[in-house]
Amino acid sequence: MADEISTLMMKNKNKKVLLRLRNTHTVTGILKDFDIHMNLTLEDTEETADGKTEKVGKILLRGDNILLISLPKEES
Amino acid sequence: MADEISTLMMKNKNKKVLLRLRNTHTVTGILKDFDIHMNLTLEDTEETADGKTEKVGKILLRGDNILLISLPKEES
Amino acid sequence: MADEISTLMMKNKNKKVLLRLRNTHTVTGILKDFDIHMNLTLEDTEETADGKTEKVGKILLRGDNILLISLPKEES
Amino acid sequence: MADEISTLMMKNKNKKVLLRLRNTHTVTGILKDFDIHMNLTLEDTEETADGKTEKVGKILLRGDNILLISLPKEES
Amino acid sequence: MADEISTLMMKNKNKKVLLRLRNTHTVTGILKDFDIHMNLTLEDTEETADGKTEKVGKILLRGDNILLISLPKEES
Amino acid sequence: MADEISTLMMKNKNKKVLLRLRNTHTVTGILKDFDIHMNLTLEDTEETADGKTEKVGKILLRGDNILLISLPKEES
Amino acid sequence: MADEISTLMMKNKNKKVLLRLRNTHTVTGILKDFDIHMNLTLEDTEETADGKTEKVGKILLRGDNILLISLPKEES
Repeated sequence: MADEISTLMMKNKNKKVLLRLRNTHTVTGILKDFDIHMNLTLEDTEETADGKTEKVGKILLRGDNILLISLPKEES
Repeated sequence: MADEISTLMMKNKNKKVLLRLRNTHTVTGILKDFDIHMNLTLEDTEETADGKTEKVGKILLRGDNILLISLPKEES
Repeated sequence: MADEISTLMMKNKNKKVLLRLRNTHTVTGILKDFDIHMNLTLEDTEETADGKTEKVGKILLRGDNILLISLPKEES
Repeated sequence: MADEISTLMMKNKNKKVLLRLRNTHTVTGILKDFDIHMNLTLEDTEETADGKTEKVGKILLRGDNILLISLPKEES
Repeated sequence: MADEISTLMMKNKNKKVLLRLRNTHTVTGILKDFDIHMNLTLEDTEETADGKTEKVGKILLRGDNILLISLPKEES
Repeated sequence: MADEISTLMMKNKNKKVLLRLRNTHTVTGILKDFDIHMNLTLEDTEETADGKTEKVGKILLRGDNILLISLPKEES
Repeated sequence: MADEISTLMMKNKNKKVLLRLRNTHTVTGILKDFDIHMNLTLEDTEETADGKTEKVGKILLRGDNILLISLPKEES
């Protein structure tokens, strides 16, 4: 993850993000930290698969499973 | 992503691009930024899968999921 | 695995963690050690697949099989 | 992509090439540029899948999706 | 494979280990050697797939096929 | 591709080789060039899939699609 | 492939080895050479798939397709 992207991630720390994973699951949680491999730590995380949502609390998610991260609108 | 390609991407910043993903989904959005791994940030993004389109707003998309990026025609 | 993530893992040594694997299996165990590839060693490990749980004792798990690690709540 | 291959690609700039992709799709277009990862830019591109052909205009195609590139005969 | 993990592997040389592979097969054998890619050499190896066990003698197993290595209990 | 293998490839330049690909297709052609990633250029190439053979002329084949290369017998 | 493993391979040059591939095929042949990626050259090679065996002569096999290599017993 290069600088341009890293700055964007930094601005979204402590905000709620939505992740689409490669395995089609969806994960929502508060973004706490990340590294250059797009490994993320999230809190208050929920994972949705096949219409069922499950709380998974505080997680470390490997970046190579991520399809996309949907970011909250910036406050104006 | 080497220099030749990087220059092309730079010219398409703030333009609408269409992405075909490896998982057969289609994503359209305004290209805001990118890095050497072809990780992209997009705004006003829509994702289409199996004929259904969903707004996903501002996203960070991991480059390794991309099949191809269809670029707008250059204005003459 | 970069520094931010490494520190988090370090704090969870000797605690019980839950792993979701890419192959949909679930693994629980006491986190003993890890390396930069997210290779983990676990003790008192149990693997659950298709509703069946099996004890696998002390294991070394390759990091590239991990989807996410669910961490215990920090004690206050 | 090493030097031997790079020279070949260079000679085929501005010529029409046919790509077989790993996902069994076929892509034809005018080769405009490429980098060491075999990322390509193409113009006047058409993508064929399951017997249906669609124009996709100017594209950037990630090299890791390519199976093979069929090159035009050299003019004598 | 980083140092922490390497030390653990070293302690299990000449002991019987059980491997779960990514392709769901199970392999048991005496661990003889390993390298940083988790490539392993095993002796008196047996491979189990779909309930059938077959002796495969002395093998070299590529590390990238490994899901997890179940290690014997340390003697006290 | 290390030196030992590179020398072997060099000796087979301008000879007819048969490739088995990971996608089960078979490709035959005259080996013209190669690089360290086992990317190959071939001439007079034919691709066979599901019993059907198609001429694809001069191609550049990405090495990561190759399962094995069957080489001609050395002339004595 | 690190030194420990390389030494083992070296000792098995010119001996008959059996390979299990990731695609479930089996390959037997005389090991002639190898490199650090576990790319192998084999002679008098036979490939078995779905119960059918076919002679493929002298081959170069890409290492990333290998599951395991079954080595002959050392002569005493």
